[in-house]
Amino acid sequence: MTVSLVGAGPGDPELVTVKGLARVRACEVIVFDRLVAPELVAEAPPDALRIERDALGQEEVNALLVAHGRRGRRVVRLKGGDPFLFGRGGEEAIALADAAVPFEVIPGVSSLASVPASAGIPVTHRGVASAVTAFAAHDVEALDARGLARTPGTLVAFMGLAGLERLAERLVEHGRSAATPAAVVSAGTTADEQVVVAPLGAIARAAVGLRTPALVVIGEVVTLRGRLAALRRSAA
Amino acid sequence: MTVSLVGAGPGDPELVTVKGLARVRACEVIVFDRLVAPELVAEAPPDALRIERDALGQEEVNALLVAHGRRGRRVVRLKGGDPFLFGRGGEEAIALADAAVPFEVIPGVSSLASVPASAGIPVTHRGVASAVTAFAAHDVEALDARGLARTPGTLVAFMGLAGLERLAERLVEHGRSAATPAAVVSAGTTADEQVVVAPLGAIARAAVGLRTPALVVIGEVVTLRGRLAALRRSAA
Repeated sequence: MTVSLVGAGPGDPELVTVKGLARVRACEVIVFDRLVAPELVAEAPPDALRIERDALGQEEVNALLVAHGRRGRRVVRLKGGDPFLFGRGGEEAIALADAAVPFEVIPGVSSLASVPASAGIPVTHRGVASAVTAFAAHDVEALDARGLARTPGTLVAFMGLAGLERLAERLVEHGRSAATPAAVVSAGTTADEQVVVAPLGAIARAAVGLRTPALVVIGEVVTLRGRLAALRRSAA
Repeated sequence: MTVSLVGAGPGDPELVTVKGLARVRACEVIVFDRLVAPELVAEAPPDALRIERDALGQEEVNALLVAHGRRGRRVVRLKGGDPFLFGRGGEEAIALADAAVPFEVIPGVSSLASVPASAGIPVTHRGVASAVTAFAAHDVEALDARGLARTPGTLVAFMGLAGLERLAERLVEHGRSAATPAAVVSAGTTADEQVVVAPLGAIARAAVGLRTPALVVIGEVVTLRGRLAALRRSAA
């Protein structure tokens, strides 16, 4: 294999997969997101070429992967979470496919369930929610708020912190109750994790001061946290 | 820590997390699902007590975890995919919390994105789908088909193979086009993986003969497979 698109997981470096870590340890070039745990980048061989992705545009990243892949180098593209869940891995995969460069996708633990779990919230739970919808919320006005408001089950917003007040407003306008339990988890699964819980109508105000990366969880499953979080803290 | 609820990932044993594998290797008791890769169960110490979960009811599993946890044993509950995404991990966690047994949740790679990825399908993709809804489809008549049909983005049905004909029918009745691209991935990420692609209106017939576990993917992202799958096969 030439280029491996690898999911690094949600933050905790031990949540990388065994296969993903093996690729990092054997690579010649590593292109990594700023939010990926430094401990994982440090697992690359000392002489591997290290390229931080955040200074580059997506087209430049695609071109880099193709260029190094064409030379037959073992390239790892290390991405936060999972490459195909809001990771833009599909765009990189298509660029590689179009250039006839062999590649593989090594999935990672997405923030979707792991970050709420770390805060004591199961995104699905029998009798409470049998569906979960994850969506990208960096452009709140572009969202199909009507469809999302009426979607059964739990909602999980990625990149939703900056526009949270308007997001909550739009969901309530389209029929989600302002009393729906909600939570924001900042830096989930890491030592800096912070959690705020409030009804949907008050969650934006409650989350003021939290830092990105942050995940927004909306739905009755948030109430399960009370039964799970106290003990988890005492056991930590 | 006493009891660890560990996600084993989607099938490929190398897709377990580093942390999850460490817990398996150090455990005294392991309670595992039938669908978990045998290679992972084999990583438990030779003298660990091995208990297959499938012969037991959920209440019995909960009671087992509490009983061994109370004795202070290092217990691993190894589950397919992720414990909190249709894994009933929340029920086990609540049983442990209510019994005041210390526990932790170690997330896993869910089938949600990894199984479609293995088939060359990104569940989200810029300009195609910025949302994905995962739902449990073992009881098709109980589903909010109206809400699901109108949910924006990709739909992923867990346990959806047995009732696939009726599921497709209900989604079309409520407004999803019968021409929506759909796929069924059986035994995703393993050597036995099989993939079938057809429009939603014809997917049940196309999937006849496929085996569980299987994931159903519905949405325009399925069309990206053509650009990704051919090369991945040639590179394998």
